Amino acid sequence: MRLGFIGLGVMGRFMAENLLRAGHELTVYNRTAERAEPFRALGGRIASTAGDAARGQDAVITIVTADAAVEEVCLGAQGVIAAASPGTLLIDMSTIAPGTSRKIAAAAQARGLRFLDAPVTGGDVGAREGSLTIMVGGDEADFQVAMPLFQAMGRRIVHVGRTGLGETLKLAGNLISGLTLMVAAEGIRLALREGVPQEKIEEVLPHSSAASTELANLLNRLRQDAWEPGFSVANRLKDLRLAVEMAKADGIGLPIAPEALRLLTEHDAQGGATLDESSYLRALLA
Amino acid sequence: MRLGFIGLGVMGRFMAENLLRAGHELTVYNRTAERAEPFRALGGRIASTAGDAARGQDAVITIVTADAAVEEVCLGAQGVIAAASPGTLLIDMSTIAPGTSRKIAAAAQARGLRFLDAPVTGGDVGAREGSLTIMVGGDEADFQVAMPLFQAMGRRIVHVGRTGLGETLKLAGNLISGLTLMVAAEGIRLALREGVPQEKIEEVLPHSSAASTELANLLNRLRQDAWEPGFSVANRLKDLRLAVEMAKADGIGLPIAPEALRLLTEHDAQGGATLDESSYLRALLA
Repeated sequence: MRLGFIGLGVMGRFMAENLLRAGHELTVYNRTAERAEPFRALGGRIASTAGDAARGQDAVITIVTADAAVEEVCLGAQGVIAAASPGTLLIDMSTIAPGTSRKIAAAAQARGLRFLDAPVTGGDVGAREGSLTIMVGGDEADFQVAMPLFQAMGRRIVHVGRTGLGETLKLAGNLISGLTLMVAAEGIRLALREGVPQEKIEEVLPHSSAASTELANLLNRLRQDAWEPGFSVANRLKDLRLAVEMAKADGIGLPIAPEALRLLTEHDAQGGATLDESSYLRALLA
Repeated sequence: MRLGFIGLGVMGRFMAENLLRAGHELTVYNRTAERAEPFRALGGRIASTAGDAARGQDAVITIVTADAAVEEVCLGAQGVIAAASPGTLLIDMSTIAPGTSRKIAAAAQARGLRFLDAPVTGGDVGAREGSLTIMVGGDEADFQVAMPLFQAMGRRIVHVGRTGLGETLKLAGNLISGLTLMVAAEGIRLALREGVPQEKIEEVLPHSSAASTELANLLNRLRQDAWEPGFSVANRLKDLRLAVEMAKADGIGLPIAPEALRLLTEHDAQGGATLDESSYLRALLA
């Protein structure tokens, strides 16, 4: 397919590479232009605005940092929706509020475009290996059209339901992983402060009912004393805030998440922002 | 070895069977006498008090429900410490406060006995299969003496450190698993209330960074609409309370656990007590 691809960050660059490798024709755009340059050698074309990347394509993929960036890229005067031809399929793979997805879907539909929200999980490793999990909201027919693209980037590809539900499941999953990390950190703090040697924690807990992906991740970080992102506190905070705000807007009580959000906001303000989210544990041990 | 074995509950009965099968001579005692009867056919002797079970043994294993029961069985007039010969190794495998373990260890030492705290994880399935994880506090020499017994009951056998540290690691691990369950329940609630179909949650989250043993357990319970214990809310609450009290007594701040304890206490009071701990999710969805 002829594709526009917008957003060549930690995730996007690998996803774009995998699409090129699968034989699609890519026109890429990135706000910081230098990040687009390497794609010339891979056979990609480089656009100077998001709108240029979207013009005359079969589909346009966006994966940028947050709601405001998606709105700018899609809804702006130089943006995707203004430039794309009717019938173009717009696929936003950023992690944003489901409400923002629905707003962009409506603007796209008003100009005869189609829209899928399709956030991913699996991190930079999954992006590089083409093994991402992709959660998709939107029409089944559009989902089927996009399937070859998703298959070039991911392994577990799930049509969750109507527009926005891809993002909803992503945010709920991120709420769980973020809070799981925080409570694992709390238990590690307790064990260490009570005098349990770190290697005994590593020997037992990952093989007990306390086991989780985030616990394993934390113990790995602690052993290596390595706190660079990875997934930054700022990013984790953004996703947690989106989940808590979505729940609040829809009147869904969350017993623990708002307090966890407050605690992580505090950690962010006290210097955690640029570190990996696992630095929450380091702060608890300080 | 000649063994006294006290406490033939959900875990203890299988552990005692495995010790018999490994060739040890067992004298068993259980407060509710009927539970001891089946051991006659397996070649075990049946004692009428804890003290009788402890008399003349090389080692005595206790695994009962809570601190008060351990104190009664070990420290009571008809109890283990009054009856056992000097040199006997007392191994308490109950989940109790490390402070109680240290108190019993001191009473044992005063009469020339030796003591290990050795709580387990792995549930009734692990107990039956002899695949428990066993976390041991006490002297290295005593740990080595007990090793053949532990190997008959468990697979991962870890000497954590001094007296009480087996219990400490157990409580910290249970704090993590209990809180992991609660935050997973919270995220599942959010996704379902926002309209994500249950089967889509099952398809995605166990393969994402939200993955944990407790999340898988919850989704399994939800699919089967099955809420009988397993591990009851009352037992989970007991362990969580022990961990929070230990932290408080030792001046170790826990940011989230006290509020989680309050929430689970509420669930317990509202009819959850006799159900499996996963019923916390059912209550969040009601």
